[in-house]
Amino acid sequence: MTKLADAKAQRVLQSFRAQNLMTQIGAEITSLSRGQCEISSPIPDNMRQQHGFGHAALSFALGDTAAGYAGLSVMPDDMEVLTSEMKIQLLAPAQGKRLIASGRVLKAGRRLVPAEADVWAEDDNGARVHIARLLGTMVPVAAT
Amino acid sequence: MTKLADAKAQRVLQSFRAQNLMTQIGAEITSLSRGQCEISSPIPDNMRQQHGFGHAALSFALGDTAAGYAGLSVMPDDMEVLTSEMKIQLLAPAQGKRLIASGRVLKAGRRLVPAEADVWAEDDNGARVHIARLLGTMVPVAAT
Amino acid sequence: MTKLADAKAQRVLQSFRAQNLMTQIGAEITSLSRGQCEISSPIPDNMRQQHGFGHAALSFALGDTAAGYAGLSVMPDDMEVLTSEMKIQLLAPAQGKRLIASGRVLKAGRRLVPAEADVWAEDDNGARVHIARLLGTMVPVAAT
Amino acid sequence: MTKLADAKAQRVLQSFRAQNLMTQIGAEITSLSRGQCEISSPIPDNMRQQHGFGHAALSFALGDTAAGYAGLSVMPDDMEVLTSEMKIQLLAPAQGKRLIASGRVLKAGRRLVPAEADVWAEDDNGARVHIARLLGTMVPVAAT
Repeated sequence: MTKLADAKAQRVLQSFRAQNLMTQIGAEITSLSRGQCEISSPIPDNMRQQHGFGHAALSFALGDTAAGYAGLSVMPDDMEVLTSEMKIQLLAPAQGKRLIASGRVLKAGRRLVPAEADVWAEDDNGARVHIARLLGTMVPVAAT
Repeated sequence: MTKLADAKAQRVLQSFRAQNLMTQIGAEITSLSRGQCEISSPIPDNMRQQHGFGHAALSFALGDTAAGYAGLSVMPDDMEVLTSEMKIQLLAPAQGKRLIASGRVLKAGRRLVPAEADVWAEDDNGARVHIARLLGTMVPVAAT
Repeated sequence: MTKLADAKAQRVLQSFRAQNLMTQIGAEITSLSRGQCEISSPIPDNMRQQHGFGHAALSFALGDTAAGYAGLSVMPDDMEVLTSEMKIQLLAPAQGKRLIASGRVLKAGRRLVPAEADVWAEDDNGARVHIARLLGTMVPVAAT
Repeated sequence: MTKLADAKAQRVLQSFRAQNLMTQIGAEITSLSRGQCEISSPIPDNMRQQHGFGHAALSFALGDTAAGYAGLSVMPDDMEVLTSEMKIQLLAPAQGKRLIASGRVLKAGRRLVPAEADVWAEDDNGARVHIARLLGTMVPVAAT
């Protein structure tokens, strides 16, 4: 695991905290290194679907964000990151105490950064179920 | 456009209203027929990303839900719908007055219902920009 | 339908004919305009799967190529095209007299060109069945 | 790695050999166990694109087939396997001596079997480059 330079880590955290969606649901970055990012989140009531499980959009949001900041961690310092496209494969219901999303870069390209993520649901005892796999493309964009 | 039987339309609306995420963001079903569903939503502050645009997860949530209820509309009456997998292609930033998502069924299969959706951003004058296309798989599950 | 400049059309046809896979299976470009490309192909014996239908990779090859040349048609004259990623949704078996793939550009971006394609199977009477939908990303690369 | 029962292994190999596409390009199953399948293939001249590299459809065919037989290996004995949908992320050109595709099951569901695959290009010295990642859905169908 390559430690990120402090400036880069600060940029990722600053960008993350500027995401209203992430702060509102109470998500936190729990691990960050070059090409890798892990996020932990509760399953808030306002992100549930009709069966009471976490909405697919919550798993998408966490996996996409983890993949996105994994991508940003390998981009030049003056860049921001955008998701170009993303596929999510849903494997099991989002239930339990919290969700963990782990994103990683598949290839640190100059124009395109393919990345993927896994999402797990964790119960009160820390046992994890694999609930989603994501695969998509991050692109660097000039920060404004 | 085939009108849905009242009982089926009621089931879709009931399921939609049971989705905390949809009700919390203020989304509404604005059109519903056999194999088609349209949803309209504001861009709430708590669903924004770091640049102030709607989060990709909001476009995903609306497109996925529109595709899902389009799928449910062609399933047997005693079934509920789950997303098995979904790809989203992001085309433009989610900004403006509201987002419109339109889902439609590609094939009304017995076990799998491939479906797609478009998402547009609408400004104050009603002008629309195409911001996302989704393509995925809905599956019927026994209602509990 | 915007007619392509002759030089651009020549470039697309030249690139297509340089694809051994397309020429070997007997595929032909049957329509080409700005942002759109249609390909027709037989179902050769060496592109079949274990049930005697056309292999998913044949539908993929035709849809991907149609989307790719639709993409190339909107790129600058000195560029070639590469597929960055592509999803295929298979709807019905590839059987009949020939396959028709129709690709179109979703957004003529400078760095990324999202594109999609449909594939149909046509029988001896010209009746068509929709067998696949593709959605993906084309990127311009410097021609060598 | 769980060894497959002989009968199941025979079924997979029989199905593989019935695929004209796989036999024509000279592909072979080099590893097979419960939930996992590896395929090795040359890059035949008739599967190349306009730059002389292996066509994206070749990487797709190998990855999809490896994921498919990984899927079949966890299905009941009287079932065959079909690809429902598949996404491919292309990471590098398909060049070198041969391609290796390794597929694995993400979840051995009863109705749906999400699976993924990696494809590598291997040079004369056995050095490997990761050229594609696939993620999709396999479904069991009644064998005829």
